[in-house]
Amino acid sequence: MSRSIEFFFDFSSPYGYVAAERIEAIASRHGRTVDWQPILLGVVFKTSGGAPLPSLPLKGAYANRDFVRSAGFHGVSYRHPERFPVSGVAATRAFHAAATQDSVANGVLARTLMRAYFTQGIDISDPETTIALATGAGLGLSADTLREQMASTEVKDRVRAATEAAIARGIFGSPFTIVDGEPFWGADRLDQVERWLATGGW
Amino acid sequence: MSRSIEFFFDFSSPYGYVAAERIEAIASRHGRTVDWQPILLGVVFKTSGGAPLPSLPLKGAYANRDFVRSAGFHGVSYRHPERFPVSGVAATRAFHAAATQDSVANGVLARTLMRAYFTQGIDISDPETTIALATGAGLGLSADTLREQMASTEVKDRVRAATEAAIARGIFGSPFTIVDGEPFWGADRLDQVERWLATGGW
Repeated sequence: MSRSIEFFFDFSSPYGYVAAERIEAIASRHGRTVDWQPILLGVVFKTSGGAPLPSLPLKGAYANRDFVRSAGFHGVSYRHPERFPVSGVAATRAFHAAATQDSVANGVLARTLMRAYFTQGIDISDPETTIALATGAGLGLSADTLREQMASTEVKDRVRAATEAAIARGIFGSPFTIVDGEPFWGADRLDQVERWLATGGW
Repeated sequence: MSRSIEFFFDFSSPYGYVAAERIEAIASRHGRTVDWQPILLGVVFKTSGGAPLPSLPLKGAYANRDFVRSAGFHGVSYRHPERFPVSGVAATRAFHAAATQDSVANGVLARTLMRAYFTQGIDISDPETTIALATGAGLGLSADTLREQMASTEVKDRVRAATEAAIARGIFGSPFTIVDGEPFWGADRLDQVERWLATGGW
């Protein structure tokens, strides 16, 4: 049994962000680490038939209200970005270029980018902005190396492969958490994730 | 400020059923009653662009697993019906024909029908089955009166008007709970509903 829990998210997903702010504490309470897995939800939607929430009739207006309320409910700081949604490509490439075996460092990187976007409206779809944030996160990354890697075929392929692998496993939304093979979709399933970690099911 | 909380649901909605089993206790803890509002989600989906969960790629398979797990998480008895989904028209007509000003009795009627479907697989899309269940719920209804009313233009119009009014208010899914004007979509928002009832917002 893996001791890490898999946490799939899109960098432009408000519920992904809210869950990202909570998942590490939940994992840690049960002796687990988090395997951070950014994916491109736009690509996923081509398979699942999904669409960005704000584009949907009725549901879009509700979602904009619920993002703020759900963040506040969990004590997560949130300011809905003026430009929303944005492409997660730059942030996802930066993550896959910079990620290591250190899950705590990976979490710092992921949350640094999401917090910039979801609390300050900083446009993380801009590669140079993302490079500045990632190198400023105290992880010892060099801007030049990161920029070069983000543009490399290897990293682009890694991003594509990660998203395709997620689709193949049935992942269709963000956040999506897998605990010992059991899939949980949504920030609002973290209470079930926590009980599953404690009990192994019910 | 209304002392009742509005609870919209479709009789064929698993999450609607799970929430229906919990909403009255939540309301009651905060001195509220429940205004039971069955609607026809199929009609709603024509406006919202939604679709029954099981029909969606990836999401459908997950949903079938999540229905059972979420019910179990909340201690609600659930057996996924072999025939699913079914039309909620007969049950909704029976409800609108039989509903009174007594919200507790309305809740008994709604839950009787949903429990039959979601714990025993009884087909509540069949009018005679629904009539038998409703008259057996101990509410003093006569089968003949109920049958006659369900077939009346007045009740059919009432069902249509209720669904149209719900759409006009931005309701796009089941369950959908409104507390003093604040909308909450989903069985997984009942924790927020409860805190909203206690605090009036955050």
